[in-house]
Amino acid sequence: MAQPGRLIGLGVGPGDPELITVKALRLLRESPVVAYFVAKGKKGNAFGIIEAHLQDAQTLMPLVYPVTTEVLPEPLSYEQVISDFYDQAAVEVAEHLQAGRDVAVICEGDPFFYGSYMYLHARLAERFNAQVIPGVCSMLGGASVLGVPLVYRNQSLSVLSGVLPHDELKRRLADTDAAVIMKLGRNFHKVREVLAELGLAERALYVERATMSNQKIVPLNQVDPMSSPYFSLIIVPGERWQG
Amino acid sequence: MAQPGRLIGLGVGPGDPELITVKALRLLRESPVVAYFVAKGKKGNAFGIIEAHLQDAQTLMPLVYPVTTEVLPEPLSYEQVISDFYDQAAVEVAEHLQAGRDVAVICEGDPFFYGSYMYLHARLAERFNAQVIPGVCSMLGGASVLGVPLVYRNQSLSVLSGVLPHDELKRRLADTDAAVIMKLGRNFHKVREVLAELGLAERALYVERATMSNQKIVPLNQVDPMSSPYFSLIIVPGERWQG
Repeated sequence: MAQPGRLIGLGVGPGDPELITVKALRLLRESPVVAYFVAKGKKGNAFGIIEAHLQDAQTLMPLVYPVTTEVLPEPLSYEQVISDFYDQAAVEVAEHLQAGRDVAVICEGDPFFYGSYMYLHARLAERFNAQVIPGVCSMLGGASVLGVPLVYRNQSLSVLSGVLPHDELKRRLADTDAAVIMKLGRNFHKVREVLAELGLAERALYVERATMSNQKIVPLNQVDPMSSPYFSLIIVPGERWQG
Repeated sequence: MAQPGRLIGLGVGPGDPELITVKALRLLRESPVVAYFVAKGKKGNAFGIIEAHLQDAQTLMPLVYPVTTEVLPEPLSYEQVISDFYDQAAVEVAEHLQAGRDVAVICEGDPFFYGSYMYLHARLAERFNAQVIPGVCSMLGGASVLGVPLVYRNQSLSVLSGVLPHDELKRRLADTDAAVIMKLGRNFHKVREVLAELGLAERALYVERATMSNQKIVPLNQVDPMSSPYFSLIIVPGERWQG
C-alpha cells in the first residue's frame, strides 16, 4: 500500500500573487492535488492568486460551499449544513491522502488566521501528516498598502470582527492601543458609527481588497456602506512612539 | 541629478529562509543597498535569513543599536539615545537615496508589526518614495509550527506584549477569545503566573524561535523562566468552533 499523502494548509498571501512565500510556491508546484474552498459560481480569491502556477497534471479540487448566507429557512441551521459540508470535504480529501497523494489546500492569507482550512485540519490532522505553511495575512497586506505602522513597542493590538454587536465592538475598541476590524461588508455602517462615537474616525483607515489588482483605498467618510465588500478592512493604527 | 532611490521596508518572514515572499526576494536582489538593524556584536536575525541571497556588488549597511538595554544610568535616557540613533540612521540611509540608490531595510517578520523599520519610515517616507513589502509575522509562524488555529470565525484576537504589568495583562487576557503574547524573555515568569491565575495555562502553547533552525517547542510548565529568549511567544488559541 502507498505511503499516505500529506495534508498541506498552504497560505498564499493577501492577494498580490507575488506575496506568496517561496516555500508555499514550491509545495504548490509539488502537490498533485490542489484543493480550495469557493462560493458557488465563483472562482475564488485563493485560486486566482495561484492560477498562473498550476500545471496540467495537477488535479483541481474545488470545495464548493453549499450556502452563501448564514441565515437559512427553518428547519435548516447554518451550523449543521456547514458542518456536514466540512465532513464531506474531509472524506474527499482523505481519499487522495490514502492513495498517497499530497493535497495542498490553498488559503487566502494565512491558513490559521480565520481560514476555512482549519475545519479540514481539525478532521484530518490526527489521521494524516498535516503541515501548515503560514502566509502574509490580510491585515499586514492592508497596513503595507496604507503605509501605516500597525503597532509600536509594547502597544496592544486587537483584531476584531465587524460582525460583533455595537456595544462589544465599542468596549473593545475603547480599550486597545491599535485595532484591525475585519469582515466589514454589511457591518460597515455599524462599525463606522462606533468609530465616530469613540472619536476614532479620523485615525481609522479603510482599504478594500488590499494588494489585489482591484484594490481601493477610500477615506472612511466617503465609503458607501452599501458597497463595502466582505474583503475590506479598517485599521486604527497605534499612536506613533517618538523613537 | 539622479532620480532619488526608493526606501523599501522589506519583511523577510519569521525565520525559515523559505518563508520570504517572492516579491521580497526579488526586491532584495534588485537593491544596491541592504540595511538592517542589529545589536552590537550580533549578526542579526533578519540578516541570517537572507544572507544566502546576497551578491558581492551589494552594499551592506548594518545599523548598530548603541544600547542593548532600556535602563541606562542618569542622565542618559533610553528614549533620547535611541531617538538620536534613529535620526543618524535616517541621515545615512538618505544619502544613498539621494544618490539614486534603492535601500532595502530588511526586517524580521513584518516591517509594520512591531518592527524598527517604522522609525526610519517615519523620518523618510515624506521625502522619499517608500514602499513596504509585508512579511509573515512571528505569531503566524508560531501558530503554524504549533499546529494550532489562532482564531475561528468572529473571535477576537489580542496581541499583547509580555512587558505589560501583571494586572493589565490579566485584565486583557481575561477579556479575549484568543491571544498571542510576544516579547517574553525576562517577562516569562510573570506571564506564566497570569495564565495560571486565569486557568489558561493548559490551553497556552509556547515556542522559541518559531520556524528557525534552532526552534524549540516546550510544554509551558517545563520552560525555564531564566532561559526564555526574547524571540519566544505564547499562543492561547481560540476555542474550536464546531464547524
